[in-house]
Amino acid sequence: MPLLVMKFGGTSVADLERIKNAAGKVKREVERGYDVIVIVSAMSGKTNELVGWVEQTSPLYDAREYDAVVASGENVTAGLMALTLQEMDVPARSWQGWQVPIQTTSAHASARFIDIPRTNIDAKFAEGMKVAVVAGFQGVSHEGRITTLGRGGSDTTAVAFAAAFAADRCDIYTDVDGVYTTDPRLCDKARKLDRIAFEEMLELASLGAKVLQTRSVELAMRYKVKLRVLSSFEDTDENSGTLVCDEEDIMESKAVSGVAYSRDEAKMTLVSVEDRPGIAAAIFGPLADAGVNVDMIVQNISEANTGGGPVTDMTFSCPTNQVARARKAMEDATAAGTIRYAQLVVDTDVAKLSVVGIGMRSHAGVAATMFKALAAEGINIKVITTSEIKISVLIDRKYMELAVQALHDAFELDKAA
Amino acid sequence: MPLLVMKFGGTSVADLERIKNAAGKVKREVERGYDVIVIVSAMSGKTNELVGWVEQTSPLYDAREYDAVVASGENVTAGLMALTLQEMDVPARSWQGWQVPIQTTSAHASARFIDIPRTNIDAKFAEGMKVAVVAGFQGVSHEGRITTLGRGGSDTTAVAFAAAFAADRCDIYTDVDGVYTTDPRLCDKARKLDRIAFEEMLELASLGAKVLQTRSVELAMRYKVKLRVLSSFEDTDENSGTLVCDEEDIMESKAVSGVAYSRDEAKMTLVSVEDRPGIAAAIFGPLADAGVNVDMIVQNISEANTGGGPVTDMTFSCPTNQVARARKAMEDATAAGTIRYAQLVVDTDVAKLSVVGIGMRSHAGVAATMFKALAAEGINIKVITTSEIKISVLIDRKYMELAVQALHDAFELDKAA
Repeated sequence: MPLLVMKFGGTSVADLERIKNAAGKVKREVERGYDVIVIVSAMSGKTNELVGWVEQTSPLYDAREYDAVVASGENVTAGLMALTLQEMDVPARSWQGWQVPIQTTSAHASARFIDIPRTNIDAKFAEGMKVAVVAGFQGVSHEGRITTLGRGGSDTTAVAFAAAFAADRCDIYTDVDGVYTTDPRLCDKARKLDRIAFEEMLELASLGAKVLQTRSVELAMRYKVKLRVLSSFEDTDENSGTLVCDEEDIMESKAVSGVAYSRDEAKMTLVSVEDRPGIAAAIFGPLADAGVNVDMIVQNISEANTGGGPVTDMTFSCPTNQVARARKAMEDATAAGTIRYAQLVVDTDVAKLSVVGIGMRSHAGVAATMFKALAAEGINIKVITTSEIKISVLIDRKYMELAVQALHDAFELDKAA
Repeated sequence: MPLLVMKFGGTSVADLERIKNAAGKVKREVERGYDVIVIVSAMSGKTNELVGWVEQTSPLYDAREYDAVVASGENVTAGLMALTLQEMDVPARSWQGWQVPIQTTSAHASARFIDIPRTNIDAKFAEGMKVAVVAGFQGVSHEGRITTLGRGGSDTTAVAFAAAFAADRCDIYTDVDGVYTTDPRLCDKARKLDRIAFEEMLELASLGAKVLQTRSVELAMRYKVKLRVLSSFEDTDENSGTLVCDEEDIMESKAVSGVAYSRDEAKMTLVSVEDRPGIAAAIFGPLADAGVNVDMIVQNISEANTGGGPVTDMTFSCPTNQVARARKAMEDATAAGTIRYAQLVVDTDVAKLSVVGIGMRSHAGVAATMFKALAAEGINIKVITTSEIKISVLIDRKYMELAVQALHDAFELDKAA
């Protein structure tokens, strides 16, 4: 029997009416001849409520108890979804993580899958059950305690089930109708993509196009799961939404598939750091230990000179809310004598802008086109980094919207390939 | 190590502040040298919310899914209570039903205990855990599905744990400070009892003095669990509240310990039923099948006579909201030809009043005192039934409050034995 995995996020199951709507979509797939595994999130707002209670109770909470509490939101939705399907005459039952059992590591609040045994669910499919509704975001450790995967983990649950059950497709129903060339709120020419490569989606997801959790895309790429993003609030068919797939499944691609941005960036520069072997480790080790998520890193020769040995400027970016932590880590390292620098310059008024595309590998001149388009608008580039399929720049935040539109035009993203 | 079971109901854990208050009481017992098993209900209102969602989704719901959904309320409280205790430096962890595992029958929504294995929890006590916080009201069937015990089931969970772990005492913390001679809202002379016998508590509980779930008292009586009811909103010590205990632990008792009442009663009389062997079964069989909880049953000779064979009047009482169902069962039985009667008289304006006391066994004249007291107030008695430790009457509902006060005075319940 062909099998589909369908995942519904929090806004798609926010109340009984929406659960009914989602169940209708499941029923349609059953009528098309599929067995279905449905992965559900908690009703929107519920997980935040539970997390709030835990944090108020115990700021430095025991993550095992945190997991036991916050996983309960998904359990409620799973039961309600099974009941809704039964009301529609679709044979369905709910499964909590420990009932499958979804085996994970013991890294509470950020657990990873170890195994998803098929036995229990397959036995019920064999008995005539058409839909297994599984609580997303959770699992169970070998100690028998409830674990969770971290926020947004239900996407990852969906992909993991699609891989374990060799599903024909993994459909992620959400509140947008697919993946766009850029954010439609910033650029009215933004166009929905029919297909996008895993690698591109990874860059877009980690760059703030928060349609899919990054780990779910990684997992889908590794296990070649056909992943589709589509809207739970529209009529959908087999061609709806955006298919996230292998590069080979995309016939022809443009140099650039999309423009991503992130407002939540700060640029920090250590001016005139002594330039010696091991200095990068001496800087970024303490930052990692302090939990700072360093993103871009650029090193260049300093104009200043403290008169001592050779010096360099080290620039990096991180989320704005981690600036204080980063500054403290640098000051502590200075006090400990492990690094020396003339000045720490912080710029919290920057934004990150990236163009992403697997076509970049075969198309020349992408960087030139990007820089020319920004220059034409008088936008100064502060930092540049590149990867195989991505070029990112930091610019003044006030120009972000203008820059997104300029790049969208420059790469003609409003037109299909 | 001496061990206590402490149970906190929904109002006692209604919000984070109250959970903290309850945790304070637990900590005090730990400081007195006890290991503690805490049984928690869902935060008040939560179970009703979940039940409402299930019933709206599926009026004739699959009880297995109902259980999976409604059990989640207790899981949240258990985690939050464990975290609160940890914040107070008390080593604690939470246990959901399947983690213990609390083994029950598969009678979903009204499951019964099969076994509570001590192994897992005892192992943690041996490692230094001082408090096991267990989600009340739930268990797991041998099919590995979540079960619940029916409303108020957390009391029963508490007593079952006290029996399984041979606890020194089972303390039920609630929003009243003990068991009273009668409802203080109806009678300002009502007095808190220091001790009450299991048998008396059973009669009082099933008569509407809803302090403890009936099943929990039955279980406590069978396993000789010392059960105490006390307030979570007052400072309490070892002598607070009311101890529900074996008859032998009560030194001296009065003839009557309490006056109970129930407003939710209807009286139904089948007039001139043909009087033949098997007629009672022909009436009460269909009523039981229709789910009518028949309480009092009285048969007496009918004054009317249909002219055929011998006839009798059959009177019974049931909850008012089951009258329609009872009437339909009787009409169906008539249509099927299994019973015949002249008339069905329904009186929904009655109340049930009972005096309860194990002392009744050794004191004569209790019934006479009761009837005299009611007569003195001009209150007519419609139906009388008696048991070994209880005398119940149905009266017009409008006299209920007056009758409660009159009986409380007649048996001098405001004075200790």
